[in-house]
Amino acid sequence: MAYDTDNLFAKIIRREIPAEIIYEDEDSLVFMDVMPQSAGHALVIPKAPSEMLLTADPETLALLMPIVQKISQAAMKAFKADGVVVMQFNHAAAGQTIFHTHFHVVPAYEGVELKRHNRDMANADLLKAHADKYRAVL
Amino acid sequence: MAYDTDNLFAKIIRREIPAEIIYEDEDSLVFMDVMPQSAGHALVIPKAPSEMLLTADPETLALLMPIVQKISQAAMKAFKADGVVVMQFNHAAAGQTIFHTHFHVVPAYEGVELKRHNRDMANADLLKAHADKYRAVL
Repeated sequence: MAYDTDNLFAKIIRREIPAEIIYEDEDSLVFMDVMPQSAGHALVIPKAPSEMLLTADPETLALLMPIVQKISQAAMKAFKADGVVVMQFNHAAAGQTIFHTHFHVVPAYEGVELKRHNRDMANADLLKAHADKYRAVL
Repeated sequence: MAYDTDNLFAKIIRREIPAEIIYEDEDSLVFMDVMPQSAGHALVIPKAPSEMLLTADPETLALLMPIVQKISQAAMKAFKADGVVVMQFNHAAAGQTIFHTHFHVVPAYEGVELKRHNRDMANADLLKAHADKYRAVL
């Protein structure tokens, strides 16, 4: 598969479609998942064209992982979470729906099951409120 | 929480308890999960004492991610998988049961749901057969 420059996340990077962006640097972008599995579900992506972890340039991954860690730490603080699940899906059979490398950072809460992946669209106001919680600690 | 040097994975690193080890280098160890969520479920761990991604030394993560990628690629080849799910759990509320940093590499197969995390113990012969499939491509 070749990298599709018109995938949803490429468009978010180019600001062609909106997202609740909570962090950005030269190499990475972080924004709220619109179908959150829990309160505070964020997506950490490289700006470099990269389809999935399986085929990612190791340098792209090396730049990304400190941001995955940073956002995981922020999730604990911003949401008073009890834990964090980090997930990364490769190919449709594994649940990948957007073919731009992304790490899911999903806050976990004691006694609360995560919602299914990619199921229910969240209310825009709620996503903004969650994004603001991240922004307050980042 | 302080790192517990008597956790299960620390004991595997020290060879105090057995595991189906499929890859080892100076910094990393990879072995089969004894409660696989699918055929080929492997665990990638650093040898450095490290409790979880949230608190891991960034250098430890930097050394580990190329191995996570390598094993994900090997899973595709060895098991003719249709995809790979990579997961990493922080704290008990997120499903972490062993407090030594580990990445789950879980092959995904079209139309087959992953089993629940940490549920059914696999047969030792089956685990060895799966480990051999990895060994053949690594």
